[in-house]
Amino acid sequence: MIRVVLVEPEGEYNVGFIARLCKNYEIDELYIVNPRCDVKKAIPFSAKGSDILDKAVIVSSYIEAIQDIDLKIATSSIANNEGDMLRKSIKPWEIDIDDNKKIAIIFGRESVGLTRQEIYAADFLVFIPASEKYPTLNLSHAVSIILYEIWKKRKETKNQNIVAVSPEPLRFIGEYSEKIFRQISRSNSDYPMFVAVKRSLLQGVRDNEEAWAIVRFLRKVYMKLLHQNE
Amino acid sequence: MIRVVLVEPEGEYNVGFIARLCKNYEIDELYIVNPRCDVKKAIPFSAKGSDILDKAVIVSSYIEAIQDIDLKIATSSIANNEGDMLRKSIKPWEIDIDDNKKIAIIFGRESVGLTRQEIYAADFLVFIPASEKYPTLNLSHAVSIILYEIWKKRKETKNQNIVAVSPEPLRFIGEYSEKIFRQISRSNSDYPMFVAVKRSLLQGVRDNEEAWAIVRFLRKVYMKLLHQNE
Repeated sequence: MIRVVLVEPEGEYNVGFIARLCKNYEIDELYIVNPRCDVKKAIPFSAKGSDILDKAVIVSSYIEAIQDIDLKIATSSIANNEGDMLRKSIKPWEIDIDDNKKIAIIFGRESVGLTRQEIYAADFLVFIPASEKYPTLNLSHAVSIILYEIWKKRKETKNQNIVAVSPEPLRFIGEYSEKIFRQISRSNSDYPMFVAVKRSLLQGVRDNEEAWAIVRFLRKVYMKLLHQNE
Repeated sequence: MIRVVLVEPEGEYNVGFIARLCKNYEIDELYIVNPRCDVKKAIPFSAKGSDILDKAVIVSSYIEAIQDIDLKIATSSIANNEGDMLRKSIKPWEIDIDDNKKIAIIFGRESVGLTRQEIYAADFLVFIPASEKYPTLNLSHAVSIILYEIWKKRKETKNQNIVAVSPEPLRFIGEYSEKIFRQISRSNSDYPMFVAVKRSLLQGVRDNEEAWAIVRFLRKVYMKLLHQNE
């Protein structure tokens, strides 16, 4: 299941174009957090995707839009800044699609993108390669490229029978990494360590067996650290 | 050299967005054949690509836009119709980019695309994969996907020189994972946990900065566990 999440979109035309793209690429759900434009005015731009707009879920907070999601993928036109761990990113073709997972692709405001807080709440950050002189794509065009790459991946991998990792152990890996981090961190500025460990584990794990072994490892470490602090 | 050719575009916003995309993807030339809209009104949509609009070459015939071109690539949302040889198509990622050739990517009208005559005058037809139920992308979104794929082809092949992770932090990741494992394991049959964590971290880590952040995390966990056992 794939959900497109738009955070506070500002332009009707972008919302309409994105609804059309969701139709072009068979996206299951469109969520819009606090639209800053008139979604009704988006209809002319949605062409044959107007039913996607009718069914779009409008929510008032970011958390509402992502809380039931297994894999949260944030997008940004700023990425790989030296020294900024939060902005370490993957490329559109590296997004791992698994039909058993609920996946959200999250797009920020036209003007300022996603906040650091919003990116932090996601599992991955995707960056679309473009000219260094002017890498900022218009919102709906960023959406088109991501949805196109996901479509390629879904159609190509369907016959490949890749062994998937289930959402449950992945969620535990995220949770226990964070719990361990809370035990060892002295200040919030330590968080790049946690981001690096969680992201590398999620990126590197290959199957369910390995995922559950990692969960056991992290849980044991966490229990021991916890016990110590009692 | 890459030229984008728009044949009789009808929407200002599309022309503007396409100018922006030409800037995002360092396209050399934009030609517009008989625009059916006011190109001046496209400026607000071109953002930092407005200079591309200023330099755009407006011509009155299709032939003028392509006569000096070595490789002419037409695009269509209708392709591979059984028995219609003219519409046999290649995929965006199959476009062959050669920096020594003059290449034109040709996009048709929003309403009816390119005529059979216009496709016939080109060397290839590119078709962007999308849902069979609704494969017709909006014009500027089709442009974004094609330009993105060409960019990937030009760049990714050019510097395949992926930033490698140095052996030193990788060795530390292995060592500290094992040291932590020794602190938490009850028997040697626990070792798959360690193998899974180490392998996933080594597999998932992307660069030196991230690798050192993981080392710091593991070292902190280890020191804390060690301290507890004293």
